[in-house]
Amino acid sequence: MTTISEVRATPVNVPMVAPYRFSFGTLASFTTTVVEVVDSDGVVGIGETPHGDLSSLIEAMGERLRGLPVDALNAAEDRCVARTGFSLWADAAAERRAFGGIELALWDLRARRAGVPLVDLLGGRVRDTVAFTEYFAPRVGREETPAQVVDACVRAAADHDAPWFEGKLGVFDVETEMRMVADLVRELGPGRVLRLDANGAYTVPTARQVCHRLTDLGVGWLEDPCRTLDETARLRADGVATSFSTHEADLARAARTGVPDAFCLDLTELGGVRRSQDFLRACAALGVDFWCYSGDAGIMTAAYLHLTASEPSMIRPHQSLFRFTADLVIEQGPYAPRGGLLGVPDGPGLGVTIDRAALARLHERFLHEGGMAADGDDAAYRGGFRQQ
Amino acid sequence: MTTISEVRATPVNVPMVAPYRFSFGTLASFTTTVVEVVDSDGVVGIGETPHGDLSSLIEAMGERLRGLPVDALNAAEDRCVARTGFSLWADAAAERRAFGGIELALWDLRARRAGVPLVDLLGGRVRDTVAFTEYFAPRVGREETPAQVVDACVRAAADHDAPWFEGKLGVFDVETEMRMVADLVRELGPGRVLRLDANGAYTVPTARQVCHRLTDLGVGWLEDPCRTLDETARLRADGVATSFSTHEADLARAARTGVPDAFCLDLTELGGVRRSQDFLRACAALGVDFWCYSGDAGIMTAAYLHLTASEPSMIRPHQSLFRFTADLVIEQGPYAPRGGLLGVPDGPGLGVTIDRAALARLHERFLHEGGMAADGDDAAYRGGFRQQ
Repeated sequence: MTTISEVRATPVNVPMVAPYRFSFGTLASFTTTVVEVVDSDGVVGIGETPHGDLSSLIEAMGERLRGLPVDALNAAEDRCVARTGFSLWADAAAERRAFGGIELALWDLRARRAGVPLVDLLGGRVRDTVAFTEYFAPRVGREETPAQVVDACVRAAADHDAPWFEGKLGVFDVETEMRMVADLVRELGPGRVLRLDANGAYTVPTARQVCHRLTDLGVGWLEDPCRTLDETARLRADGVATSFSTHEADLARAARTGVPDAFCLDLTELGGVRRSQDFLRACAALGVDFWCYSGDAGIMTAAYLHLTASEPSMIRPHQSLFRFTADLVIEQGPYAPRGGLLGVPDGPGLGVTIDRAALARLHERFLHEGGMAADGDDAAYRGGFRQQ
Repeated sequence: MTTISEVRATPVNVPMVAPYRFSFGTLASFTTTVVEVVDSDGVVGIGETPHGDLSSLIEAMGERLRGLPVDALNAAEDRCVARTGFSLWADAAAERRAFGGIELALWDLRARRAGVPLVDLLGGRVRDTVAFTEYFAPRVGREETPAQVVDACVRAAADHDAPWFEGKLGVFDVETEMRMVADLVRELGPGRVLRLDANGAYTVPTARQVCHRLTDLGVGWLEDPCRTLDETARLRADGVATSFSTHEADLARAARTGVPDAFCLDLTELGGVRRSQDFLRACAALGVDFWCYSGDAGIMTAAYLHLTASEPSMIRPHQSLFRFTADLVIEQGPYAPRGGLLGVPDGPGLGVTIDRAALARLHERFLHEGGMAADGDDAAYRGGFRQQ
């Protein structure tokens, strides 16, 4: 019987080509934790949880998992994740995210042992390519003005045959940004600016006006217009035509209030591949959309490719920061979609492998920069948030 | 100008007289973090955040606060707490709870410097005594059976002239516990069994039956009948007569769905005394009840006394584990209500002081037992949860 021998976790900082701006501040690199699970035969499975540095929690979970069969996913989850929902003491979200990275590594390990690509263990292929959007945002030293953002998108459309775009609002003032979106739609053509993300920058009255303008411009999706989903739900009750996505995985709320219309999650947010399958199938049953989240060290993206290839309901393009990201931990190098599409790696397992030099380099960057590094004096996640 | 020189944080385990049982498992001691803020004159203010070990986070915040005037509560909060709500990276709840412990210590410090009891800085007294419930639950080696739980309550009523009781459901089967509640109501007299807490043990159909039985027995309050507030809201929609309390501080949900009817929180859950005032006054504006949470090392209880003495809307008895708790960190020793009431300490500040030997003793216990210690092989917060 093959059992779990060791769980290793390495926090890394993935640098941006240039720091990008959004309503929270400026982000120069994001922090994600790479997971390796070693079995009793010395086979290694790899995973990733893109939620900052969760290495202590993951390694503590590893102690609880030692000796457990590599197929015992129920027992593994039971040893690591509390079943009690809201907690006054624990960080239940961090537990799910940490275990999710381990669970992904166990899937990779089991597929590697079987000599098959992960998609085969997930039921097999229903499609051969997976769609992603191109990202845009103001960036320090590159696209400093709305006109430069528009130019960058026009170049991306030409260079990569990119059909779908998604990007940030909430940095400049509303009038300036609505003119920028109008320019984007005109330059790229209708239907190519798919989704915008305000990261909670608007009060309800401002968001009402923005939604009306976006509808007139033919843009249907807006992520987190307001700081809370209760505020966003007031827009839905007002009858705006915009659809709303979010990262907060509350499906009961979607069923009850009609908000959000889509969830944008990575595969560890709910505790791994199995819990993501549960969730996205429940979304499909309730008519709620689902797509994957951007910003990882390369391993999570591989997991998106295998899962999406096996799930009929995953018909929306995922988020991506592929062209914004300057470095990854995988030997297979950067992801570069053509026509918005990537193929599914052949495997075995996830079909990507860790570049040890890159892992060391990005871990060193984490040790030097700290978590979720901002640009200079700016603070990406504290004090910098500006509401309009 | 008096400034913040140092912030110290000490995790401690507060032991129970005997481990108590509830739907999550068994709890032998709970973990809380004691906070000390030292100002530039060497005056020390004390606080507490009863949410496990938050010492690393609190001491990291202390670095950011060094040199700030002790009255600069706005700037202090801005340096410590993200304003962005849900986060994919940070534990926003832990940030609020950690800062809340510091903020409480700053209130104590400022009142000590002024030579007045904290209640005077909070606007002055509107009442002189504060009400608490007596607690009951099955306890290992003491009240092992429902009959023993009833006997213990009858003794507490006689010994302490206790008018109000609150306790656990979700340990024995539903029929047994409904008979226990009937016995309690008969032995204690109507109106004395105020509130019960199922800690999410029931599915919606089971909870419907329980609510109906409790209503017939004259018990009006039930805390967390179901695992999620969405499930509990279905009970409200069904027209049950029971009122529901919870620890999840979502006032927008209460306004929208009618659930919960009351919040049970400590004063750090929302980020300190000021944010608690904001919240409980908003609750009063919306007709939602509020009372304080039980289980601390003695400092938080002192804060409850001062705040309650100053807030007209705080008319409900608070939870308490006073007779269940075997040790505290304060020199003033255990709290022992008569007739369910405690007076407000004279001050200065909170009017309680740290017993250094007790602090060392309970910190040693934390180092030895780990966080939120269970009884023997049982696990209080992982795997032990049983739904009925």
